[in-house]
Amino acid sequence: MHITGFGIIDKIGSKLVYVTSGCIKTSSDNKLPPRLKLILDGLNHIILRHAPEHAAIEQVFVNINPKSTLLLGQARGVAICAAVLNNLEVSEYTALQIKQAVVGNGHAKKEQVQEMVVKLLRLEGKPGVDASDALACAICHAHGGLGTLAGIYRQLKNGRMV
Amino acid sequence: MHITGFGIIDKIGSKLVYVTSGCIKTSSDNKLPPRLKLILDGLNHIILRHAPEHAAIEQVFVNINPKSTLLLGQARGVAICAAVLNNLEVSEYTALQIKQAVVGNGHAKKEQVQEMVVKLLRLEGKPGVDASDALACAICHAHGGLGTLAGIYRQLKNGRMV
Repeated sequence: MHITGFGIIDKIGSKLVYVTSGCIKTSSDNKLPPRLKLILDGLNHIILRHAPEHAAIEQVFVNINPKSTLLLGQARGVAICAAVLNNLEVSEYTALQIKQAVVGNGHAKKEQVQEMVVKLLRLEGKPGVDASDALACAICHAHGGLGTLAGIYRQLKNGRMV
Repeated sequence: MHITGFGIIDKIGSKLVYVTSGCIKTSSDNKLPPRLKLILDGLNHIILRHAPEHAAIEQVFVNINPKSTLLLGQARGVAICAAVLNNLEVSEYTALQIKQAVVGNGHAKKEQVQEMVVKLLRLEGKPGVDASDALACAICHAHGGLGTLAGIYRQLKNGRMV
């Protein structure tokens, strides 16, 4: 089983509004090309339906086994394809950047990210972990990406440590 | 630098005819999404121009560092995307299967594969290593994929060892 989470938000002024989220599941019982096609068609459908103006994806630094890394890479390549096919520029953020932007702590736990996503988007229910991660990535992008990290950088440039 | 090799052949009766081959190079100086877009657009262009009826890709089992594996996976995901977007069914073959089908030895060296590709397709010059690998994969598919391996399998089914 491979899960690709997605999440779409609107940024209206400084306000973030939830649009949709979910995930695309593909079974490892099936061959790779049809599985990748499912991800491509699914994301394409979502992009065509909601017409986002930006795309953001988590930049992964994996240290799991090579087979899983390869699978993840393939699915990631497809997700980026779906965006560039629709002429969307794709921004990449590390998990550290996303957690920093959403929770204010680059080493926050998944549950903390999930809670902050619920709070920031005023959701009534908790989205699944994969959808929540995708929404967090979108929030990070909406916040201008580097968020607090950029702040640290500026202060360091002035010769002061935070 | 990441290189994606491609090769197109025609199968006319039992005869294999070279059509085109080459590679798409992307620089690691650029960001990932535009690099993947370059591969997608390049392969899409080649598919539209030559209208192949089948697609085959090498199935990789990598044991290099996770970062390279991820990069390879992403490019591989994009290559499969280019094929499925054009409604091509994608077959996957291991390096062992390809070498077995082209050279007759699953553990043949890259140079031997290159030489056999030149011989089988009656090429006047030697294609680059990446283009040659792609042509070898196409030849493997044209030979019915499993090639000699399937032969071994049948003989084993009859209770005899090869």
